[in-house]
Amino acid sequence: MTTTADPVRNGVDTAALFATIDAVKADHDIAKFQFRATNTWVTGTHNRSTIHGFHGATQELTHQQPFVMDADHPPVLVGSDEGPTPVEYVLHALAACLTAGLANVAAARGVHLDEVSSTVEGDIDLLGILGLSGDVRNGFQQIRVSFRLRGDDPEKLREVVERSTKRSAVYDIITNGVPVAIEVDAG
Amino acid sequence: MTTTADPVRNGVDTAALFATIDAVKADHDIAKFQFRATNTWVTGTHNRSTIHGFHGATQELTHQQPFVMDADHPPVLVGSDEGPTPVEYVLHALAACLTAGLANVAAARGVHLDEVSSTVEGDIDLLGILGLSGDVRNGFQQIRVSFRLRGDDPEKLREVVERSTKRSAVYDIITNGVPVAIEVDAG
Repeated sequence: MTTTADPVRNGVDTAALFATIDAVKADHDIAKFQFRATNTWVTGTHNRSTIHGFHGATQELTHQQPFVMDADHPPVLVGSDEGPTPVEYVLHALAACLTAGLANVAAARGVHLDEVSSTVEGDIDLLGILGLSGDVRNGFQQIRVSFRLRGDDPEKLREVVERSTKRSAVYDIITNGVPVAIEVDAG
Repeated sequence: MTTTADPVRNGVDTAALFATIDAVKADHDIAKFQFRATNTWVTGTHNRSTIHGFHGATQELTHQQPFVMDADHPPVLVGSDEGPTPVEYVLHALAACLTAGLANVAAARGVHLDEVSSTVEGDIDLLGILGLSGDVRNGFQQIRVSFRLRGDDPEKLREVVERSTKRSAVYDIITNGVPVAIEVDAG
């Protein structure tokens, strides 16, 4: 068991978490972030992104190292399987955001976590992206997330997931949508 | 310059691409796919997904290897920076989907690509996820994608991006949203 006096709970530095929230309360500009990815086509459906710099807390920042990730299609979708598909990255992003959030919420509430795992499934009908039906959307028709949590009282664990969902950036992006502007330099 | 007789163009096996489209036309069930990610909490905001199996073309399939990816928050967001943030994975997924799509579209149309790169930026105000404002959404407020393409005639390149956007799974997911169901086993 942990107590609310622990500065670090579930691996979350709650003192730093509360200090961050206080700093943002005092200056809302600290909360304005911009995240970025740069992507380069390799060949066919294979391409590679690098994630390094971002803006936040009123300054330019970088991750401790550049993160490089490949995406591709599997052979059944005429790719060479050099990485996950783009839509699988979306499923990962959703699980990761809900899980990071619930670890923070649990720590802030003094709820102890022993184990958190999840499976995310997304159904997609390729008639859409292949242009074979005007009635079928291109993206996932439905996404299901199944969480398994162990630790404190089950009711508290369920409340932590509920709160994390209400405050999740990726859950909001996926369920509510975001405007996307596309610019092309084909010089 | 390439000609429309090339079986492989821009690294895309166009013969296989058209054969896939014909197979799907003949049997729509081939087009029903389900993608999956499993995620495990490590500590704090650090968690890890594995992407391996999926369903498609009426059978259970696996990638040639399991793909493992870490997500975390950077120190400024009280994490330990063991991987990109979940929202950065969303930006990568968008760039990757549009880029894979435009390589396919270009190949199908006989448009030659020399170079494709892109930068994706997403603006997010953390007042939302920190619960400090009811008026600020949790997710990105706006996403901008800037493409640079070199190869064939600029007008053809622009049309290829336009068509890829119209048929992109991740662009559809992000701009139009997807219903997400969450189930919790806190046994």
